[in-house]
Amino acid sequence: MMPKQTLQHQLCDAAHYFHQKGWMLGTAGNLSAKDPQHGFWITASGQNKGELQPEQFLLLSLEGNVLQKPSPSLKPSAETSIHTAVYDLFPQAQACLHVHMLESNWICDRHPHNWIELPPLEMLKGFGWKAGSARILVTDNHDDVPKIAADLSAAYQEEQDFFWVPGFLIRNHGITTWGADISQARNRIELFSYIFSYMCGP
Amino acid sequence: MMPKQTLQHQLCDAAHYFHQKGWMLGTAGNLSAKDPQHGFWITASGQNKGELQPEQFLLLSLEGNVLQKPSPSLKPSAETSIHTAVYDLFPQAQACLHVHMLESNWICDRHPHNWIELPPLEMLKGFGWKAGSARILVTDNHDDVPKIAADLSAAYQEEQDFFWVPGFLIRNHGITTWGADISQARNRIELFSYIFSYMCGP
Amino acid sequence: MMPKQTLQHQLCDAAHYFHQKGWMLGTAGNLSAKDPQHGFWITASGQNKGELQPEQFLLLSLEGNVLQKPSPSLKPSAETSIHTAVYDLFPQAQACLHVHMLESNWICDRHPHNWIELPPLEMLKGFGWKAGSARILVTDNHDDVPKIAADLSAAYQEEQDFFWVPGFLIRNHGITTWGADISQARNRIELFSYIFSYMCGP
Amino acid sequence: MMPKQTLQHQLCDAAHYFHQKGWMLGTAGNLSAKDPQHGFWITASGQNKGELQPEQFLLLSLEGNVLQKPSPSLKPSAETSIHTAVYDLFPQAQACLHVHMLESNWICDRHPHNWIELPPLEMLKGFGWKAGSARILVTDNHDDVPKIAADLSAAYQEEQDFFWVPGFLIRNHGITTWGADISQARNRIELFSYIFSYMCGP
Repeated sequence: MMPKQTLQHQLCDAAHYFHQKGWMLGTAGNLSAKDPQHGFWITASGQNKGELQPEQFLLLSLEGNVLQKPSPSLKPSAETSIHTAVYDLFPQAQACLHVHMLESNWICDRHPHNWIELPPLEMLKGFGWKAGSARILVTDNHDDVPKIAADLSAAYQEEQDFFWVPGFLIRNHGITTWGADISQARNRIELFSYIFSYMCGP
Repeated sequence: MMPKQTLQHQLCDAAHYFHQKGWMLGTAGNLSAKDPQHGFWITASGQNKGELQPEQFLLLSLEGNVLQKPSPSLKPSAETSIHTAVYDLFPQAQACLHVHMLESNWICDRHPHNWIELPPLEMLKGFGWKAGSARILVTDNHDDVPKIAADLSAAYQEEQDFFWVPGFLIRNHGITTWGADISQARNRIELFSYIFSYMCGP
Repeated sequence: MMPKQTLQHQLCDAAHYFHQKGWMLGTAGNLSAKDPQHGFWITASGQNKGELQPEQFLLLSLEGNVLQKPSPSLKPSAETSIHTAVYDLFPQAQACLHVHMLESNWICDRHPHNWIELPPLEMLKGFGWKAGSARILVTDNHDDVPKIAADLSAAYQEEQDFFWVPGFLIRNHGITTWGADISQARNRIELFSYIFSYMCGP
Repeated sequence: MMPKQTLQHQLCDAAHYFHQKGWMLGTAGNLSAKDPQHGFWITASGQNKGELQPEQFLLLSLEGNVLQKPSPSLKPSAETSIHTAVYDLFPQAQACLHVHMLESNWICDRHPHNWIELPPLEMLKGFGWKAGSARILVTDNHDDVPKIAADLSAAYQEEQDFFWVPGFLIRNHGITTWGADISQARNRIELFSYIFSYMCGP
């Protein structure tokens, strides 16, 4: 077993891996995890994720206010409100990962609705799905990010006779997921990658 | 030459490599190898394969009963019966590898039968094929895994005038292969990857 | 934080990474950065970029004359005039990266004009774009490289009611970008990779 | 600069890299380099190329007879005669690399003749091409390998008003190239990869 790492180290490991996979190119995407005491740590804006360091995270309150920053020049990600919305909607979430995956854009382009039906791959069981219809939510890429949060909140509260996978798509933008810890959220990003790639076809 | 490694170390090496190739994303797939004394070692359920450690394997009897587990929380993979079926059908097999490859799903989608004809690539010779028709078996993704084993057993016992490659496909699921050792089984996973990718086209 | 590296070390890191991504295969492409005192350092001609070493750079004046070379056999890249053109047109540029990306050729083949409209992906914001039309310039692959520079200069000086992204394409050849430092230019190469790949489709 | 390595070490480096790129999967392909004294070193048959070690090479005479083998169980590659044919046809060649690339098979499938016209990419200049028509030779995958050598010899001796790139394709099989040293041959493999991938399209 590896020695236990800080949350920031674990998020850096995830960032380096996602960058190598092409899911965090340029300075795209942002990763967060709840602090055991209060609020959550999130990647600072504008960093290359392939070289992300533990010093490049800020501690924010669950409302998104800066509680601590390792250096004065760091600013929280412009997409912080995606994370606060996730922690608000899913109080059990301990980590939230938002990345830019080509396949997520391609499948949105093919589906005009605010949800996409997922194929019945064995892989879907990784989300806890067993049988029947499984869907992922899709929202528009509002410049006003709180509108994205409102879309999510409204959609998840509707009655449903299908399985919502734990993640959502923003058109022309990317995929966001969460988990009971960083490791689970990271596995979910991989599951989405596989399922979306399958849907795009060979 | 590298110092000789334990079976668990060799399987971890395979898992890390397959994960990096995108063949064991999320916590998908499972790997096993026969113990020189009795039974076989198999990956515990629910582990990320990119970070798999030698402590994350259980020793099972050839009937699938737990003989030894390094920590009480570990459970054998839900797909253990795929491995017991392989060791039952092919007593000479010393290792069995089951992974989730996008290409394996795509080629199943294009072929409705319970077998697929493989193209006469030079690569096929890696399976011992020389000339003539070569096929891979395809079964449905039964929730009741012993039904998969029954499908295999029935198909392999039929008379045949073609070459069965050493592996089989489960629809919407993945590819399973085996070998006289971990190294041979691993080479076979790579051969399948190449052949299926070729069949999917550019 | 990593200890501060020389420009040549930073360019080698970029070359190794681009090579691994398939953007500098064979001995393709060349990378440069302005020296703090005068002129710029550029990769020598004919080197494999996956194994590029800090000793394989020449110091040139901004007009492209050799000021310093670590070993007598090194010659400046044949495409040096692309770099001198960039430093001339964009005096604020401190680094210039030219790589050969399959996707850049494919999108040129689909677009006959001397510019390509880019899709409104969130990723485009990494270039400073906010809304409206965004374009990338395209020039022919003149053997006479100064003609490429003249094409660029003419195009950028025209009046425009759209956003030029900081980079240009040469047909059948590759993509060139620049930045306020090596890190920014490198992020831009990644952004182009993502956007062009998206445009090519799944 | 790195300390000078033996030919076997350099070929192992190439094998590990080609394997990681998917060009030497299973145990596919073989690599050789001329010994400074006599004959050439070639990979033994049946080795996984991702883990190839310097001890897994045999020294053969230019006619293909075994001069030296580090361990009695090693056998020369079944495709040794491709290498002897190359060294016979191109006496200046010091290294010969034969790999299995998906793209090489796909482009052969699209072209029925015994040559393929290559597109006028800037990348082609890496082969010494300047302008005009450039072609690569294609032969059938004869089980009788000396027939492949005869095909090559006949084709290269015909009069021609185009540029032959330094490599040839075997249908359903792979690409072979050579060079003045291992490094040049390796760059050429990369150039072919890029050009064939381009031809396959996005």
